[in-house]
Amino acid sequence: MDNLFQEVPHIIRKLIRNEKIKENTSGICNGFVQGNLVILPKDLAYDFLLFTQRNKKACPLLEVTDVGEKEFKNIAKGSDITTDIPKYRVYKSGHLKGEYTDIKSFFRKDFVSFILGCSFTFESALMDEGIEIRHIKENKNVPMYITNIECKPAGIFKGPMVVSMRPIPLERLVKVINITSKYPDVHGAPIHIGDPSKIGIKNINNPDFGDSVNINKGEVPVFWACGVTPQAVAMNVKPEIMITHAPGCMFITDIKNTELAIF
Amino acid sequence: MDNLFQEVPHIIRKLIRNEKIKENTSGICNGFVQGNLVILPKDLAYDFLLFTQRNKKACPLLEVTDVGEKEFKNIAKGSDITTDIPKYRVYKSGHLKGEYTDIKSFFRKDFVSFILGCSFTFESALMDEGIEIRHIKENKNVPMYITNIECKPAGIFKGPMVVSMRPIPLERLVKVINITSKYPDVHGAPIHIGDPSKIGIKNINNPDFGDSVNINKGEVPVFWACGVTPQAVAMNVKPEIMITHAPGCMFITDIKNTELAIF
Repeated sequence: MDNLFQEVPHIIRKLIRNEKIKENTSGICNGFVQGNLVILPKDLAYDFLLFTQRNKKACPLLEVTDVGEKEFKNIAKGSDITTDIPKYRVYKSGHLKGEYTDIKSFFRKDFVSFILGCSFTFESALMDEGIEIRHIKENKNVPMYITNIECKPAGIFKGPMVVSMRPIPLERLVKVINITSKYPDVHGAPIHIGDPSKIGIKNINNPDFGDSVNINKGEVPVFWACGVTPQAVAMNVKPEIMITHAPGCMFITDIKNTELAIF
Repeated sequence: MDNLFQEVPHIIRKLIRNEKIKENTSGICNGFVQGNLVILPKDLAYDFLLFTQRNKKACPLLEVTDVGEKEFKNIAKGSDITTDIPKYRVYKSGHLKGEYTDIKSFFRKDFVSFILGCSFTFESALMDEGIEIRHIKENKNVPMYITNIECKPAGIFKGPMVVSMRPIPLERLVKVINITSKYPDVHGAPIHIGDPSKIGIKNINNPDFGDSVNINKGEVPVFWACGVTPQAVAMNVKPEIMITHAPGCMFITDIKNTELAIF
């Protein structure tokens, strides 16, 4: 299993399905887009879909299944969303019921599944240009913060935007903005650069999720809309049932990272 | 009324509301985004929203109202969709019932209104760079063609992509691709360049909608996904009721064209 980095997605999904891979997908299938999962019953799906449309930067939608459909036909041919993620979280009325390696017994005919783009894609593009991603270097989770930026509400869904932060040397700032701008389907350009207090972050060393990372002299904190936003917002609503991936255990798609670059 | 080119959107919307402007919005409020309108009952809105998500290039969504809401809060503060378009078309079961200067008597509490980006925005950006837009020069409607490219279906909505065509001199092609790539919310980069037969167009001089334009020596036909696609697809479904703008009579938003450029 030493060369999982280079394997193709449908083989990896099969290994995950057969529980040969049960953990973090970080670094697996290098070069292919990984996505966040949200599954909700149909009666909440319209409002959630509208929420993603109104808050594209935080909720970059890669695909939505038909009602009751298990396959993501466009981004992952032959996939089965009830088995193809290493670890799932099932929430009932906003409370974590447990973590599961498949959700076959939970799946219902009225479920709609959403895959949302994640920052792994643009981090990969940044690293290709020699830009260091601090939390990766420090072997930590990316620091994430709840901001004072309100998402545009949609039906019952509303709440603040969550952002991720990466320290960037001032002299690489233009490059970083240019590169991430090319990826609107995975959060795109930063939403804020510099002073954290301007977006309601009181202590940059005390993230709401993930881990704190070092900001070196000559570096500026750069903030991107974060894929945790839609999960956090959905959680607020305390839906009767909601299923997500467990942190770090993502859905691996057939799309190459470079395909998401718009030029 | 000589300087309507330079007026601000909310003033123009008021003039339209009071029927001082009853016709084509082309050239009015220069620099501001104009959009296509589709109004559907709520029971079709989820599938239609999903269709736009699955076919972003043809259906670049700028805003969706809440159910029964008349104002586009984000892109046109203080607007009223029942009055702020010069001319509407009302379709019942797929048949044109008539054209109206307001739709106050048709509006229902279960209506959802969609504004979709239109190519006026990128045409404006192209002209700013000195690139001639042939149909504008020839004082015609842009030529549009039904292609053999199937849109990704969503629920009851399905059908072929409609494209618009603009002849571009070969030496300006790179510029044209770069500029339009920056505008993913108004169709973005071309979907095809050159040989029309490759996308199922039999006769370039016989468009399915709009007018034929001259293609000069040294020019290549360039094709963009067209905002007529979602209307054509919705029409196929023959919804009990559907309301759109009349051709050329667009919804004027508060957004500047340049704001839609992603960099």
